[in-house]
Amino acid sequence: MANDNRFSLVTTCSGHSSARAGELATAHGKVPTPVFLPVGSQATVRTLTPQDLRDIGIAMLLANSYHLYLRPGIPEVEKMGGLHRFMAWDGAILTDSGGYQIFSLSPLSKVTDEGVAFRSHIDGSQHFITPETAIQFQEALGADIIMVLDECPPGDASFGRVRRAMNRTHLWAARCQQAHQRTDQALYAIVQGGTSLELRRRSAEHLTSLGFAGYAIGGLSLGEPKEVTWGVVEETVPLLPGDRPRYLMGVGSPEDIIEAVSRGVDVFDSALPTRVARNGALFTRRGRVNIENSRYLRMEGPVDSDCGCYTCRTFSAAYLHHLFNSGELLALRLATIHNLTFMADLMRDIRVAILGGTFDSFKNDFLKTYQPTDEKVRLEQKQRWLTRGRQADC
Amino acid sequence: MANDNRFSLVTTCSGHSSARAGELATAHGKVPTPVFLPVGSQATVRTLTPQDLRDIGIAMLLANSYHLYLRPGIPEVEKMGGLHRFMAWDGAILTDSGGYQIFSLSPLSKVTDEGVAFRSHIDGSQHFITPETAIQFQEALGADIIMVLDECPPGDASFGRVRRAMNRTHLWAARCQQAHQRTDQALYAIVQGGTSLELRRRSAEHLTSLGFAGYAIGGLSLGEPKEVTWGVVEETVPLLPGDRPRYLMGVGSPEDIIEAVSRGVDVFDSALPTRVARNGALFTRRGRVNIENSRYLRMEGPVDSDCGCYTCRTFSAAYLHHLFNSGELLALRLATIHNLTFMADLMRDIRVAILGGTFDSFKNDFLKTYQPTDEKVRLEQKQRWLTRGRQADC
Repeated sequence: MANDNRFSLVTTCSGHSSARAGELATAHGKVPTPVFLPVGSQATVRTLTPQDLRDIGIAMLLANSYHLYLRPGIPEVEKMGGLHRFMAWDGAILTDSGGYQIFSLSPLSKVTDEGVAFRSHIDGSQHFITPETAIQFQEALGADIIMVLDECPPGDASFGRVRRAMNRTHLWAARCQQAHQRTDQALYAIVQGGTSLELRRRSAEHLTSLGFAGYAIGGLSLGEPKEVTWGVVEETVPLLPGDRPRYLMGVGSPEDIIEAVSRGVDVFDSALPTRVARNGALFTRRGRVNIENSRYLRMEGPVDSDCGCYTCRTFSAAYLHHLFNSGELLALRLATIHNLTFMADLMRDIRVAILGGTFDSFKNDFLKTYQPTDEKVRLEQKQRWLTRGRQADC
Repeated sequence: MANDNRFSLVTTCSGHSSARAGELATAHGKVPTPVFLPVGSQATVRTLTPQDLRDIGIAMLLANSYHLYLRPGIPEVEKMGGLHRFMAWDGAILTDSGGYQIFSLSPLSKVTDEGVAFRSHIDGSQHFITPETAIQFQEALGADIIMVLDECPPGDASFGRVRRAMNRTHLWAARCQQAHQRTDQALYAIVQGGTSLELRRRSAEHLTSLGFAGYAIGGLSLGEPKEVTWGVVEETVPLLPGDRPRYLMGVGSPEDIIEAVSRGVDVFDSALPTRVARNGALFTRRGRVNIENSRYLRMEGPVDSDCGCYTCRTFSAAYLHHLFNSGELLALRLATIHNLTFMADLMRDIRVAILGGTFDSFKNDFLKTYQPTDEKVRLEQKQRWLTRGRQADC
């Protein structure tokens, strides 16, 4: 691993939690951790320009090599000078390898030890990706952090299938490591093993024995109950090396991030804040509010009086309500700016609390005030999203 | 008319045209003319923030009292401090009275001398608007320039119907004038008379005898051939007082604006540049291009190398092609920024040419290079737009 992609651990909480503050040094700037990465699958964080992202305070975003491989094509992005130049973003980028997307989006996929054959969810065309090509594609895109190709079985897969997928993920991780040549990119492994603590332990131990620049925990947030998620995280994190970043893939609600940070996770990504923004659900420190509710029709103040984002600085809740109610496109952008600012502010506050030794009380205060979305509603929404219409977001 | 809404004529062409440069002084800034107003019917120019509009160089925009009356409601905007504060736009605003929208959007409308009864195109609710309430609403919204309530018959109406509508528009114009109280707003009359030069003459003469701060030409661009449009404009403009602004409603293609400027028109509005932008049609000095065309897949340069807008400064044509091709929302905003910048630059160049005494050659050069959209395609698209789906834009 080259020096320009180094993780520095700044401090670990001395209280009841394992929360830690650190910094990722990349060729595209320093990224303080814990960090939340907005999702820009198709080389754009939906509705926002790079300037918007900078103004919000985003240091790193996630893009998706599966989406970019299918459209516009890896050679096309490479010809434009790579992903940073293509999307005019000079901050840091992490690309996912496509494993999760192939298994969740493709109508037909067939996996062997060699690689995975799948059909495009866009036009049905046939494709075959191996660990080697997954790395080759990500090297061509040129993100600062890239991910191994993994096999991610569905949340309800049998123990046998989960174990086979884990073993294949281990095999592929070694081949990805072998194939990886660019020294200015950090390669992260992905711990699999479903909801089995035994498999998770084996996966963490195996992958750390190979030695990666960072470790992700994959295969969670797939509809399982929250206590199962935290059980897996608590089992896995202590087995990962303390001097490497830990990345919990696909987790992005404010309350979940706080819970995961307290268990020692450093990096997060999720389409949740941007997706719910486009449905009119705006984050506040008291929980999500629905801006389409008629109580906002005449509200002169901003949606969130604690927020300093462009949307809250500039517009009344009544105006935002009007835009949503009238089906105006500006609504989507203003809501996205707000929710991503909320996330960026939250991560900054979390880090300040960790550095100041007050994370335990910060976490308690936050969770006392923040009303999470009803668990039943959350699981229903998640299930709906997992079974249809998620092409747009994952 | 108060001093803060004064039109100053700066110069009139000495060449073959009647083109003129002027300035509208409003309580929300000076507006150099000729000027093109982007359409923000629902208190938003679709996809753009006020900051975007400022960056583009927009000095005045058009909003629609019909749309705002129905949603969120005039009292709601008034409670928020008026339209400027509601939409956080401190530049100048012109509001249309709603006449055109009632007759074109409402599924059922019934007009008498008293006023017009109509059903909302949104929820079918019943409404009744009179010249007096049209003014009252526009005074509550607080735009810098407001319009009389007019009756705008369809393009294929009989001579008798057009004449009756014209006479009623005259009656209503006098009542609007009577009802108008705010001295910081300029009230413009609307010349009607369809395609009849005789009726247009009578309308222009009658309305100028009443004395308004400005004069619009309404009831054009309704599907009639271009030579008919120009015939009416050429007949009407010389009958309007030289020291008052002339506003050609609903005209907004680059070539039409140049033709109208050369006939002495000062003010334009149209949803065309923003609407076609959202369909991937981008203006260049050579004509409209379709960014979805596959020849842009690998184009490294900007869409328009002559353009200095944020989109062209920041992104390749290939990236814009990718965004449109992938159905990404950012595409709509970037294309809108480009097309409105094209319009703002065009109006600035027109004005510079008028002031420099070179408008005739500017016009010739522009029209020689600019490939207008095929007339047959244009009329078909216009007809499609007039018969469906225009709620969004007019």
